[in-house]
Amino acid sequence: MVNKLLTINKVRLEKRINSLSQIGKIGETGVCRLALSEEDRQGVESVKKWMEEAGLKARIDHFGNLIGRLEGMNPKAPILMLGSHIDSQPYGGRFDGVIGVLGALEVVQTMNEQNIVPKMPIEVVAFSDEEGCRFNKGLFGVRGILGKLDEGELERTDKNGVTRREALVHFGCDPTRFNESEYPEESISAFLEMHIEQGPILEAKDTPVGIVTGISGPLWLTVELEGFAGHAGSVPMQMRQDALVGAAKIIVALNELASHDMNAPTVGTVGSMKIFPDSRNIIPEKVSFTIDLRDIDSTRRDRIEEVLRLKINEIAENHQLTYKISEDTNSEPRYCSKRIMNIMRNECSDIGLNSIELMSGPFHDSLAMSYVCEYGMIFVRCKDGISHNPKEFSTIEDISLGTELLYRTTINLSSEK
Amino acid sequence: MVNKLLTINKVRLEKRINSLSQIGKIGETGVCRLALSEEDRQGVESVKKWMEEAGLKARIDHFGNLIGRLEGMNPKAPILMLGSHIDSQPYGGRFDGVIGVLGALEVVQTMNEQNIVPKMPIEVVAFSDEEGCRFNKGLFGVRGILGKLDEGELERTDKNGVTRREALVHFGCDPTRFNESEYPEESISAFLEMHIEQGPILEAKDTPVGIVTGISGPLWLTVELEGFAGHAGSVPMQMRQDALVGAAKIIVALNELASHDMNAPTVGTVGSMKIFPDSRNIIPEKVSFTIDLRDIDSTRRDRIEEVLRLKINEIAENHQLTYKISEDTNSEPRYCSKRIMNIMRNECSDIGLNSIELMSGPFHDSLAMSYVCEYGMIFVRCKDGISHNPKEFSTIEDISLGTELLYRTTINLSSEK
Repeated sequence: MVNKLLTINKVRLEKRINSLSQIGKIGETGVCRLALSEEDRQGVESVKKWMEEAGLKARIDHFGNLIGRLEGMNPKAPILMLGSHIDSQPYGGRFDGVIGVLGALEVVQTMNEQNIVPKMPIEVVAFSDEEGCRFNKGLFGVRGILGKLDEGELERTDKNGVTRREALVHFGCDPTRFNESEYPEESISAFLEMHIEQGPILEAKDTPVGIVTGISGPLWLTVELEGFAGHAGSVPMQMRQDALVGAAKIIVALNELASHDMNAPTVGTVGSMKIFPDSRNIIPEKVSFTIDLRDIDSTRRDRIEEVLRLKINEIAENHQLTYKISEDTNSEPRYCSKRIMNIMRNECSDIGLNSIELMSGPFHDSLAMSYVCEYGMIFVRCKDGISHNPKEFSTIEDISLGTELLYRTTINLSSEK
Repeated sequence: MVNKLLTINKVRLEKRINSLSQIGKIGETGVCRLALSEEDRQGVESVKKWMEEAGLKARIDHFGNLIGRLEGMNPKAPILMLGSHIDSQPYGGRFDGVIGVLGALEVVQTMNEQNIVPKMPIEVVAFSDEEGCRFNKGLFGVRGILGKLDEGELERTDKNGVTRREALVHFGCDPTRFNESEYPEESISAFLEMHIEQGPILEAKDTPVGIVTGISGPLWLTVELEGFAGHAGSVPMQMRQDALVGAAKIIVALNELASHDMNAPTVGTVGSMKIFPDSRNIIPEKVSFTIDLRDIDSTRRDRIEEVLRLKINEIAENHQLTYKISEDTNSEPRYCSKRIMNIMRNECSDIGLNSIELMSGPFHDSLAMSYVCEYGMIFVRCKDGISHNPKEFSTIEDISLGTELLYRTTINLSSEK
């Protein structure tokens, strides 16, 4: 029913997604296209060819970003940028990043076919090394064009000892000319990114497409508890200083705190833990574990963190444990543009799409863009919330609906004023 | 005050403990005398010499046990056996096992000096490989003389690939002649063992010596929980199947169940745990962990196990986890002889010793002996409950009091009837 309203070309879009999934293919459905690898280069070349077929002027910059430009009525107006990435995890899926790039390309190609000329230039970008798994630091290309690389990034090495500098040169880039590829301040007006949800909410709500409210930055803590080891058979319960019992109570407390308000998108996770001496008949003396706490509402996240810290203190006291909490990361939530969200809402209702609004737990290229321009994100439903895995799956129907929403939002944004 | 009553020779006992602690010494206070090693042999030779000085007939049997015999009025009467072991953990202490052997030797030497002739023969034994750390299976020597070795034990290898058979031969034993070293049924009437507590109870009760009520066999379970992985930032709390949250709740439940009756010696421990994929921003999909549950009252232990299993089922259901529980070990408690405990009680009150009674969580050579004769155990207070560690420490005052109690119990047992 909704499908009848599609302006974008679903068949072409599907063909390109399938075609790109052959490059670096692993198993039946997986993909391994590590950043700046041969496979990545092949992928970039394919998309570049499609960009040129679509009438865009395409180039690969010195960060390894692929950029296709559709000229606007006013070539000097700040650019409307659309895109995502096509590099993948080592054991990744076919849709992560890819639908944001090929969807954006589909949008601009359709505009061309419909003879719609935007007021400002539109650029479709496949950002270099979003995943960060090769050199253990992501969002490389997008930070590059914004002049936000950190010192020493080019000296980071991959598992084979290849530096990022060497990988860039091998890819055809020239790191001494980075400045030619940077975008001046205020040269980008807005950024739109479509991405698979990488979570289970849309599927649970039986909704193909979601409007993202923002990217919730995580608070990452490491908690270290220290008690006293002893023989599991000989230390009476009331004399124990069992670091694992303390850790267990903190895990339960975090779970309760994050679950407390059923209507809030707060999430709290302990994903990694180390136990010493980790022997079945010795009371654990030291336990360290990670905490990942996220909320789109930073005040609520701060409040939960405060209560959690009190809880940790109380539990440690009760079990006679000493503790140390280190803060590894503390990112603030980055909100999507209310104006863009409003346009998306209206467009959804125009095409009869019952979208819902949700926050993004994972970060995306949008996170870096959020510091220089307004941004909007569209999420597409994926099966069982699985991502970063060959089992990752979204239907072409859902992707097409997301692309249609991206198309309409783009036209709206590029014809305004 | 109590010390005035000592019949045994505290100075001689201390000298021997110090002398033995020099063999395989590590650091200032540690000992590494792995079973059947050069150091173990040196230790055995030293103790053998002291046995002979004390007037015992000493021999090393084909299991590597050192046995010193004091003849009784009736040489054919079932033997009263006293002892423990002198092999150590790789990073062990000076007292574990040692005080039970040298204390027994002191007892018999004092009897000789006091011209006390026992009715039955008394044998002082340093059992071979109690610790079991070298070939990952302990109580070797004691099981050997009782004809209770398992198949394949001689083929077990240490870290360097040396088999137990090879180590025995190197030690001077002849595994083809094991049967010559076995004891016929009913040839042993009773076994007495003094040992450091390896727990903190006596220290907490400010008591030098304790009478052991029994060795509580552990129930060892492994619990495996399986949920579903997902991005820590994108799966809402109420949709999670977090195996670590489930595990944490089970750890808390076990802790509460084992602590419930403050007067019971029940202990429950989770000492080891594995998490998959163990990544800070991924919800744990699989967690497996060990459970160690002990109680001197097996009915109470069974009841706690039953409630625990119900709890595990309930927690797994609540968190949509599948689970598997495997039973790795299920040992029954082995009670000390009431008759011997009673003798010890009377002797304690005679020498003005306020002893307490407590169970043994760890096992000892006594555990194997408990299946063939009545047995009694004396615990000596140790600092902070630390054992299997160079920090292990007991004062010579406490050890002497324990030895005095062992002496009086031995006289009592060997002059009865």
